[in-house]
Amino acid sequence: MRPSKRAPDEMRAVSIERGFSKHAEGSCLIKFGDTHVLCTASLEERVPPWLRGAGKGWVTAEYGMLPRSTGSRMRREASSGKQSGRTQEIQRLIGRSLRAVVDMEALGERQISLDCDVIQADGGTRTASITGAYIALKECLDWMQARSMVGGNVLKDNVAAISCGIYEGTPVLDLDYDEDSEAETDANFVMTGSGGIVEIQGTAEADPFTEEQFSELMRLAKKGIKELVDLQNLSA
Amino acid sequence: MRPSKRAPDEMRAVSIERGFSKHAEGSCLIKFGDTHVLCTASLEERVPPWLRGAGKGWVTAEYGMLPRSTGSRMRREASSGKQSGRTQEIQRLIGRSLRAVVDMEALGERQISLDCDVIQADGGTRTASITGAYIALKECLDWMQARSMVGGNVLKDNVAAISCGIYEGTPVLDLDYDEDSEAETDANFVMTGSGGIVEIQGTAEADPFTEEQFSELMRLAKKGIKELVDLQNLSA
Amino acid sequence: MRPSKRAPDEMRAVSIERGFSKHAEGSCLIKFGDTHVLCTASLEERVPPWLRGAGKGWVTAEYGMLPRSTGSRMRREASSGKQSGRTQEIQRLIGRSLRAVVDMEALGERQISLDCDVIQADGGTRTASITGAYIALKECLDWMQARSMVGGNVLKDNVAAISCGIYEGTPVLDLDYDEDSEAETDANFVMTGSGGIVEIQGTAEADPFTEEQFSELMRLAKKGIKELVDLQNLSA
Amino acid sequence: MRPSKRAPDEMRAVSIERGFSKHAEGSCLIKFGDTHVLCTASLEERVPPWLRGAGKGWVTAEYGMLPRSTGSRMRREASSGKQSGRTQEIQRLIGRSLRAVVDMEALGERQISLDCDVIQADGGTRTASITGAYIALKECLDWMQARSMVGGNVLKDNVAAISCGIYEGTPVLDLDYDEDSEAETDANFVMTGSGGIVEIQGTAEADPFTEEQFSELMRLAKKGIKELVDLQNLSA
Amino acid sequence: MRPSKRAPDEMRAVSIERGFSKHAEGSCLIKFGDTHVLCTASLEERVPPWLRGAGKGWVTAEYGMLPRSTGSRMRREASSGKQSGRTQEIQRLIGRSLRAVVDMEALGERQISLDCDVIQADGGTRTASITGAYIALKECLDWMQARSMVGGNVLKDNVAAISCGIYEGTPVLDLDYDEDSEAETDANFVMTGSGGIVEIQGTAEADPFTEEQFSELMRLAKKGIKELVDLQNLSA
Amino acid sequence: MRPSKRAPDEMRAVSIERGFSKHAEGSCLIKFGDTHVLCTASLEERVPPWLRGAGKGWVTAEYGMLPRSTGSRMRREASSGKQSGRTQEIQRLIGRSLRAVVDMEALGERQISLDCDVIQADGGTRTASITGAYIALKECLDWMQARSMVGGNVLKDNVAAISCGIYEGTPVLDLDYDEDSEAETDANFVMTGSGGIVEIQGTAEADPFTEEQFSELMRLAKKGIKELVDLQNLSA
Repeated sequence: MRPSKRAPDEMRAVSIERGFSKHAEGSCLIKFGDTHVLCTASLEERVPPWLRGAGKGWVTAEYGMLPRSTGSRMRREASSGKQSGRTQEIQRLIGRSLRAVVDMEALGERQISLDCDVIQADGGTRTASITGAYIALKECLDWMQARSMVGGNVLKDNVAAISCGIYEGTPVLDLDYDEDSEAETDANFVMTGSGGIVEIQGTAEADPFTEEQFSELMRLAKKGIKELVDLQNLSA
Repeated sequence: MRPSKRAPDEMRAVSIERGFSKHAEGSCLIKFGDTHVLCTASLEERVPPWLRGAGKGWVTAEYGMLPRSTGSRMRREASSGKQSGRTQEIQRLIGRSLRAVVDMEALGERQISLDCDVIQADGGTRTASITGAYIALKECLDWMQARSMVGGNVLKDNVAAISCGIYEGTPVLDLDYDEDSEAETDANFVMTGSGGIVEIQGTAEADPFTEEQFSELMRLAKKGIKELVDLQNLSA
Repeated sequence: MRPSKRAPDEMRAVSIERGFSKHAEGSCLIKFGDTHVLCTASLEERVPPWLRGAGKGWVTAEYGMLPRSTGSRMRREASSGKQSGRTQEIQRLIGRSLRAVVDMEALGERQISLDCDVIQADGGTRTASITGAYIALKECLDWMQARSMVGGNVLKDNVAAISCGIYEGTPVLDLDYDEDSEAETDANFVMTGSGGIVEIQGTAEADPFTEEQFSELMRLAKKGIKELVDLQNLSA
Repeated sequence: MRPSKRAPDEMRAVSIERGFSKHAEGSCLIKFGDTHVLCTASLEERVPPWLRGAGKGWVTAEYGMLPRSTGSRMRREASSGKQSGRTQEIQRLIGRSLRAVVDMEALGERQISLDCDVIQADGGTRTASITGAYIALKECLDWMQARSMVGGNVLKDNVAAISCGIYEGTPVLDLDYDEDSEAETDANFVMTGSGGIVEIQGTAEADPFTEEQFSELMRLAKKGIKELVDLQNLSA
Repeated sequence: MRPSKRAPDEMRAVSIERGFSKHAEGSCLIKFGDTHVLCTASLEERVPPWLRGAGKGWVTAEYGMLPRSTGSRMRREASSGKQSGRTQEIQRLIGRSLRAVVDMEALGERQISLDCDVIQADGGTRTASITGAYIALKECLDWMQARSMVGGNVLKDNVAAISCGIYEGTPVLDLDYDEDSEAETDANFVMTGSGGIVEIQGTAEADPFTEEQFSELMRLAKKGIKELVDLQNLSA
Repeated sequence: MRPSKRAPDEMRAVSIERGFSKHAEGSCLIKFGDTHVLCTASLEERVPPWLRGAGKGWVTAEYGMLPRSTGSRMRREASSGKQSGRTQEIQRLIGRSLRAVVDMEALGERQISLDCDVIQADGGTRTASITGAYIALKECLDWMQARSMVGGNVLKDNVAAISCGIYEGTPVLDLDYDEDSEAETDANFVMTGSGGIVEIQGTAEADPFTEEQFSELMRLAKKGIKELVDLQNLSA
């Protein structure tokens, strides 16, 4: 029995509130249960120096947690003067995941910055960030299309992400914080709407895991991501 | 005529959503029109080194803006590796303002950290932060009192803050961003529930101002702060 | 009775030694009693990036304290790797104060940097800095005028600053360190030669203060600033 | 045909030179073809603050590249003042991988720091680092056992790592730099001597990949890691 | 002919103003011509961690230049967030030089920090700093002796420093900025009152120099340091 | 008797392994006994901003120690976020030393960066770095000459460096770590192949030294540098 009382293949309630920000070209507040992430997309008419003149755009991401988004207060990264290794790892993952579904030539020489800020954390912040960043990015591209800045072909597919883990020997979907802290294995999957795999990360927290266990985690992930993609499309 | 169509002495709609955070000992989401600030209070059973053994507590504050809380995206301070002078100035002001109404002996050797994070900005973020931080602090002290950690005498009074300015020659209350950008003079007032002044900051943006103009700004501020204090007490 | 034995409305002995630096385009050593600040003005034929091509100049300021300018040695900010919040707050105040009396179009596309370095501190370093920076700036503009780089119309007025406070219940002018440490309220005023107010900052250190008390502080400030402006003009 | 002319399941020549450092408690120079990494293990009789008194030890890792280990010179991280996101990601991976095979109670309250410094890079530096760090760690534990500081039960298993990728549509083992730059998919596998999986990271560089492709990469990885573990044991 | 019109073995006018700072335990303003350095000594009743319990004291030094101490304004090191290599090199030299004449056992477990801040620069700031720091240190030790904290045996000898160089083929003593910029060779000498050598640094700016040239520079240095030591003793 | 059993004027075994790096335009691994330094030269077709358009090139150097190159592990500078004063002092010395033998006009508008990374330390790392950097620089210039980028006249002379010291009262050549830790005086000499002096640094570690002692150290240094220059030329 999971602490959350959910069935092994049952996700938390997921909701997406679009157009959350008055200023951003695209935004949403995404909730995976008690994990709440504000995702915004900001358009800039410039690209990083190494892309100038290449006729291609860029998509990048930053991630942050509010100091008291967690059970005990964390030190503010702006105050400590640097982003932790974990923060950098997550924002690199978000950026790679979204770039996998963007046609950079169709975007043109522009950069879209995705900011994923965790308002409240209860496990799965990086997967919620990727799933919500897709919505913010799509809103931004719709905004651009409405202004004839791009065509309708910049996004090649949906992209969404979910975590799975082995909790007391059982593979389960969408870990919350209590489950994640106790899980023997933790894995994150990023997939497209058509089922392609963009990123897999699996880590043994205690004992190593087997290929069979990993396959079962992937099966769960595919189920979860299908549900997330349906929700993304419904919310649009 | 103000861009906001408000009367010179009319504040924006202000709302306070208490208990916004699942984790923090006290929290609220405060809105002054389109300015939205999440305020949390975090209790820690330790004090800064220079207060150890003094039998007194401490209240401190940190302030941040989400990168796309503003009209154009700002650089993330955690990424640039330092807090701007403006950020430091504001968080020092918030801390001083709240400490003015706390009995540190009654608090005991503990620290309460107030985090004010701007989710969306439209002028007046520092005054919204102070007004909301009071609510988060009060919730935190109520939480402590319910656990018999403190008595009911830690808070000596309410504290709230409001901005005023001279817009096209007319003193007006509670500037939004459009008004603030054009104001000739900008002033922030922090006052207690019983009308005492905690902090005054007045700055000439263009031409110097006169003592008479400043008195008129203070009159407006007193009106606004009275309304805010009433709202604080109603929301409790 | 003040620790300094001065009457409530009596300033410390103030002196200005002009042309203190061999290299700078303008400079002075200003002394408010035992508070000694070296102010220099440095002309650069460039403006910040956001002003390029606008046909306007800029005035900026930096502030520092020598490590042993104070009673006990402070850590050197260059060694700790960052400027404190207090330092940034003060240098922003100095910059704003001086810009209030400069006609940026008449200055042309150039930047003048004002460095205020505290050689010895005994309270009131920020107000001495502003008062002395005016002299350094004026010397620099005279130097430029002598070389036909600008006309005589860049400076619109004098600017000077003074602190006031409530010490043992009595409003007093120009606090030294011993008085400042014990004051219940501390306020800084920046005004022009013609009596306009550029900046007001008032802070309750212990109990809140009243509007009447604040008016009395302003009255003292006006008296002090008049004396400082007279001295600035005499020293020219 | 791979640029390296190797068969799809053929690793580069791998060599391990043990005891490379005069000073370190354990060390080796590991070569995967032209990728050369110096791995050292340093014993310290202290643990991180959060482990003090817990009766357990800790293993941590740091990673660096010499500025001209690569085709064009990289900026020295000590000079730029921070470690890149990539560096932090890799050193976190190395640390997790090694901790997976260490019995922290049997180690006792001590920390072993593994430094992996890339002398020359030609792809696969993180997997070479993990494979070599195991040797350095084992040497260090042997050194401690020879001094009766620990028993022979601290290491629970071997651990080694290898990269795989899809190059021109074909899954291949152990990518060198030329292959890695062109690969459509890149995956890193960390496994134990007994075949358990410690960490999986798979990334689509261009188009998403399928579960079948990923299974083939894992099959290659198991073959490669078996060879690396045999080599580790032979070199001992 | 030197730009300064001085004879090859002629120093600039040197003056020492003792007791310059109201707060420091020892201080002086030392002038070598237009080079002016404020030197303070600050006593702290603690030693660096690696000396605790060793029954010995420590002497350390920090060096800084005011931003406009030079012909064109330099960036403030506190603002740029780090001390330059040059600054660190000089403050390490000052510390080593002074430690050479201090009996650390006689000092006891205390640290004296010497701050050398260049108010105005015209060449030779490091040698003026060492020569002046000796005076500040001596004043501090006299202050301590007057309070029976130490005996009269802490200082083992005087220490002073001077620069020499080869200017247009001629060895000359005590270079000012104009001479230093054009010198073919630049050397700094630190010596004790009894003629022992504490530090020698000689650098070829253009062509290498010969042993004979270096001997001539040393001869000049001995003459100059003798004059400085006499002045130190006279000023006491 | 020296701990190393060497005669007072006897150097350690010195070896130079040229072409050590696959990627760099020039490189060597130089060993002075157990001190091993990897030196690489990297060519870049750009110069520092202050040299642009001057028709001249530049040579610069960086220095680093691997964390466990020493007897006890040092903190990694990339992790601590800054280079120590010692590191900066050494890399400035290496750069100056090599620039002394380069004709910058003949090099043309290009920069060569010399990286000296200490793989293993046993005293004398800075002198080994300079001696090895000469080889890397020469290899780089040969590589450029083979591509007709420069003529054969860029290097004006050899340059090499050695340390000397006074150990138990006896002047000795080429101190290893054990000797260096106990030496009363420590001096580093940088000289050209034709015997010109480029840099001299002598420091009294305990008591001051005399001019006679210093002359004896220089005599030893000249002997040692002659041997190093012969070895440089043989290894070419």
